[in-house]
Amino acid sequence: MERTGLLIILSSPSGAGKSTLARRLMQWDDSLSFSVSATTRPPRPGELDGQHYHFTTPAEFRDQVAGDQMLEHAEVFGNLYGSPRAPVEIAMRAGRDTLFDVDWQGGQQIRASALGGHVVSIFVLPPSLPELERRLRSRGQDSDEVIVGRMAKSRAEISHWAEYDYVLVNDDLDQTEADLRAILTAERLRRDRCAGLGAFVKQLMEGQE
Amino acid sequence: MERTGLLIILSSPSGAGKSTLARRLMQWDDSLSFSVSATTRPPRPGELDGQHYHFTTPAEFRDQVAGDQMLEHAEVFGNLYGSPRAPVEIAMRAGRDTLFDVDWQGGQQIRASALGGHVVSIFVLPPSLPELERRLRSRGQDSDEVIVGRMAKSRAEISHWAEYDYVLVNDDLDQTEADLRAILTAERLRRDRCAGLGAFVKQLMEGQE
Repeated sequence: MERTGLLIILSSPSGAGKSTLARRLMQWDDSLSFSVSATTRPPRPGELDGQHYHFTTPAEFRDQVAGDQMLEHAEVFGNLYGSPRAPVEIAMRAGRDTLFDVDWQGGQQIRASALGGHVVSIFVLPPSLPELERRLRSRGQDSDEVIVGRMAKSRAEISHWAEYDYVLVNDDLDQTEADLRAILTAERLRRDRCAGLGAFVKQLMEGQE
Repeated sequence: MERTGLLIILSSPSGAGKSTLARRLMQWDDSLSFSVSATTRPPRPGELDGQHYHFTTPAEFRDQVAGDQMLEHAEVFGNLYGSPRAPVEIAMRAGRDTLFDVDWQGGQQIRASALGGHVVSIFVLPPSLPELERRLRSRGQDSDEVIVGRMAKSRAEISHWAEYDYVLVNDDLDQTEADLRAILTAERLRRDRCAGLGAFVKQLMEGQE
């Protein structure tokens, strides 16, 4: 059925499983586009331009913001981050959905944009904060001080849960993935999203019996 | 997660697969209640009171309507049909969803009722009208004249497709059943349906780290 692509916003505190869930959704549905963020921060070892981020200079970034080429943008720890608009609009016109891994600030800006009517927003909660901290520590990447900072940021992120269409508690990755699939499947089936339905019913009623 | 039960309205023209789909949904989820209609028409062979219908007298029926005990009611071919309110309200309070097999008139009345905010409505379309007629004829139950009448009623029913939250084209029963499951799963996960979320997040934030 003909339809306009959706903007699927997935937010969660760091460590609640969002990246794994996003990867699984992309594997489940290869028509789904992932919105690769632009950033002015330098690449870390192993990060590829165009895959993990679009690495850009502050001047280029500001030009893009000035030219309304960013769907949302924010400054975090002195670096600029944003979601380029063009790939999203191309996907929408082709009836393909775009998945955004953004925080509450990005979610708010995209919802408030002209494309806000096409947004489906999902917040993933950890089952508990000690469990979240355990997951962050088990990565073995960060110092105690960084963990404390991440946990404070997590609490700030969680405080925005009520701005989302759906809120999932990620007790079990498989169950949460199944719930995400159901949400995408159902949202695509909403009558007001299926632009082709009117023509289909017209043809149905006018067809020979 | 604590929540109020939903009212799931399933409508379709006769022969589009609605009864089979309703039965499959009930098998999939045994927490789902089916709304058994009340009617003043006499039972047909094999029909059981309380299972296929609540068979009642016109006087009893009118008393129940007068006492606001019917969520919706209508007269069809001289007989009264209605959905009793009490079992629905009991299920809602227990967090269980109720499935309604009603036509567009029933759907409109339930949506317009005080419980309308808890309604999820789904319309099932046949892939084509000749296919619908073929399905009606293959039952071998009805004369040509009855089939012509049913097809006219089907067209009238289909004309109300745009009043529903979801519209599914039943090309393939298994696919349509999967879509219905996804819709129920997603609707139950909507933030505004999960009354227990606020308390969960409060506990999450206040719990020890």
